[in-house]
Amino acid sequence: MTTLVRDFGATVRALREVHAWSQEQLAEYAGLNRSYVGEIERGTAIASIVTADKLARAFNVPIEKLLCVPSRGVAG
Amino acid sequence: MTTLVRDFGATVRALREVHAWSQEQLAEYAGLNRSYVGEIERGTAIASIVTADKLARAFNVPIEKLLCVPSRGVAG
Repeated sequence: MTTLVRDFGATVRALREVHAWSQEQLAEYAGLNRSYVGEIERGTAIASIVTADKLARAFNVPIEKLLCVPSRGVAG
Repeated sequence: MTTLVRDFGATVRALREVHAWSQEQLAEYAGLNRSYVGEIERGTAIASIVTADKLARAFNVPIEKLLCVPSRGVAG
């Protein structure tokens, strides 16, 4: 499951950088602690579904955008 | 955010009942503790994204199926 946690963190970081937000800004928008945001991005903290929801709302994206690995491939 | 946690638990319970699984069975298939599964279903425990992933795999559904409220409405 570590892959999920790492991918989640990488997606959060990528979205934050798209917005050109600092970790402080994202933390503020999501109502989270700055150091916790950093841990999530590095994959050293495992987010709860509530935290995932807060981050998704800060980015204004559906929660599955943070949880579904983009490299799902060409099936379907 | 409590709504998210409650909805998540209700969805887990509904899917478990569709499969006619006991909480013990779901716990075994997902690699979780039986009492923890009960707490999640009741909305008294907040699942991590790793737990959500384990449950989704046990049900063989995408993780967003557990996290996206079906009553999202008619917008769009």
